[in-house]
Amino acid sequence: MKLSRLGEFGLIERIRRMLPVGQGVRIGIGDDAAWVDNPSGSSLVTADLLIENVHFDLKWISLVDLGFKALAVNLSDIAAMGGVPAYAVLSLGIPANFDSKNIDDFYRGIGALAQPSRVAVVGGDLSVAKSLIIAVCVIGHAPRCPIRRDGAAAGDDIYVTGTLGDSALGLKLLQRGRSHDKKQTAAKLLARHRRPTPRLAAGARIAKENLATAMIDVSDGLLQDLGHICQASGTGAVILHEQLPLSAAYRSLCGKDGTRHALSGGEDYELLFCARRLNRARIKKLSHRARLPITRIGTCVAERGVVVVDGLGKAISLEAQGHDHFQRKISLANTAVLRP
Amino acid sequence: MKLSRLGEFGLIERIRRMLPVGQGVRIGIGDDAAWVDNPSGSSLVTADLLIENVHFDLKWISLVDLGFKALAVNLSDIAAMGGVPAYAVLSLGIPANFDSKNIDDFYRGIGALAQPSRVAVVGGDLSVAKSLIIAVCVIGHAPRCPIRRDGAAAGDDIYVTGTLGDSALGLKLLQRGRSHDKKQTAAKLLARHRRPTPRLAAGARIAKENLATAMIDVSDGLLQDLGHICQASGTGAVILHEQLPLSAAYRSLCGKDGTRHALSGGEDYELLFCARRLNRARIKKLSHRARLPITRIGTCVAERGVVVVDGLGKAISLEAQGHDHFQRKISLANTAVLRP
Repeated sequence: MKLSRLGEFGLIERIRRMLPVGQGVRIGIGDDAAWVDNPSGSSLVTADLLIENVHFDLKWISLVDLGFKALAVNLSDIAAMGGVPAYAVLSLGIPANFDSKNIDDFYRGIGALAQPSRVAVVGGDLSVAKSLIIAVCVIGHAPRCPIRRDGAAAGDDIYVTGTLGDSALGLKLLQRGRSHDKKQTAAKLLARHRRPTPRLAAGARIAKENLATAMIDVSDGLLQDLGHICQASGTGAVILHEQLPLSAAYRSLCGKDGTRHALSGGEDYELLFCARRLNRARIKKLSHRARLPITRIGTCVAERGVVVVDGLGKAISLEAQGHDHFQRKISLANTAVLRP
Repeated sequence: MKLSRLGEFGLIERIRRMLPVGQGVRIGIGDDAAWVDNPSGSSLVTADLLIENVHFDLKWISLVDLGFKALAVNLSDIAAMGGVPAYAVLSLGIPANFDSKNIDDFYRGIGALAQPSRVAVVGGDLSVAKSLIIAVCVIGHAPRCPIRRDGAAAGDDIYVTGTLGDSALGLKLLQRGRSHDKKQTAAKLLARHRRPTPRLAAGARIAKENLATAMIDVSDGLLQDLGHICQASGTGAVILHEQLPLSAAYRSLCGKDGTRHALSGGEDYELLFCARRLNRARIKKLSHRARLPITRIGTCVAERGVVVVDGLGKAISLEAQGHDHFQRKISLANTAVLRP
């Protein structure tokens, strides 16, 4: 069967079924990170593979920022389980035209996030390659009960941290040569694209206080990632269009794209989670203490599918959204988005 | 600075110095695997990146065997620390012409080694790519005291498990279209190239009985890997040429190459270790119980450098040997060797 017919998520499911369920595996293939037993505890493990001209284009991102981002997207997966990242293993395929300064730049970016996040880079592998390849694996300490994707139920509230769409809009400005329009405003979007902030403190706090029934990080776009939660949980979702959290920079520069990037742009690396209604006050308090907006954007429902509704409760029609590596034909020439 | 001037191992050292030493890291960058603390124990972590036409050529290896081998080379790193592998995280960059059967084949090979080794594949990442990219990270349970590279001392014996050179000679036969000479004999060498056996039981036993002062797996060739031990330990080594363990198949097909592949061919994935002389009887017993040849091939000496001597103690001259990804120019056309 062609992989384009199977799709990225069909392929993951096929692989999951082929491999035996191992001993000591509490959460295996199919969540943001795996949760595994050690002889005397448990760990979270996640990995991402980033390939030049598939996931990023060095025209739009410096090696310093790329180092930062390559680690950030993995830390975000640990955050989405409520864990605390501890160790990173980093393998690089290095093009022949790189020199030691390029390598220094990349690792400076890694260090700029690793140090404040208390993550130690403990090993990896180096090789020559035709284009830059970055393989990152992060191991984290698991909370008492990591937050999976499959625990949402009809009636749960749906929340998202921070703002949506900044990263995708920032990339679009770059690609269209419009990053100098309203330069300082655009710079805010570019920064969100190049150096996303993994929501580690919020994720760990949500897990510790047992506030979420399901959680994921928004890497492929709100609609697609919410779809993953819904599919795993056997629910549907209604999103209130007016509640989507948009930054001032986004509002200022989105133009006629409107909320398109916020709904399906991807690479936000915000936390999307579901919670029982009775936890509203505690989530508000958490948001306040963490100084991080956490916005209630909708509700889980029994009927399958993700629907976005306007202020009158009327469904807004949407084209197919989000990112699938195999179903959507990727043009190597113009794809510059990091989508792990 | 050009990376070719720095070399693979110079580059690793440079990266090691750039990054802060993290909390909880007992062994960081520079050994076969890292050794890190968990809240209530410790783990080993290792990673390899395998790139089509750099590390392997699908002309010489099937996808089933490649899956097996990609896992094997990582398990071998865990074996070289004396650990027990537990979990694997596997990311793939998949070329556009692959179909689901190709993917099934690859994971069948993974499963063929994962199952008997009790390793669970717990996650990873999938992406499109121009050529096949395989990034593997394996997490293992650490023994009480993992065996590092830096504990050898002058006077220690040097041992190697199994036989040397089979894999490299097997590959050479393939590349020269000579794999049908003495077909059944050649098949034994090809099997060693395509499905190397990580020496997990022996490695774990050596660690448990505290028999080795230093250990490494032979991936880049005996001389180079012994050089790593010597450099880390601040010793030199004398290898007895006549003691090199060669298989009957190797002797039958090596022709005028002699012991060249055994000394520096690489990809043997045997364990190379140093041990105090007083442990000779216990190592003999271990070899017997494990039904695995463990051959004493030389001695650590105070004077730096690795020397190979003949039966009369006379040094045998050797050209520069072993593999360095950046110092040796790799021809993408004919490099088919997996060298993690």
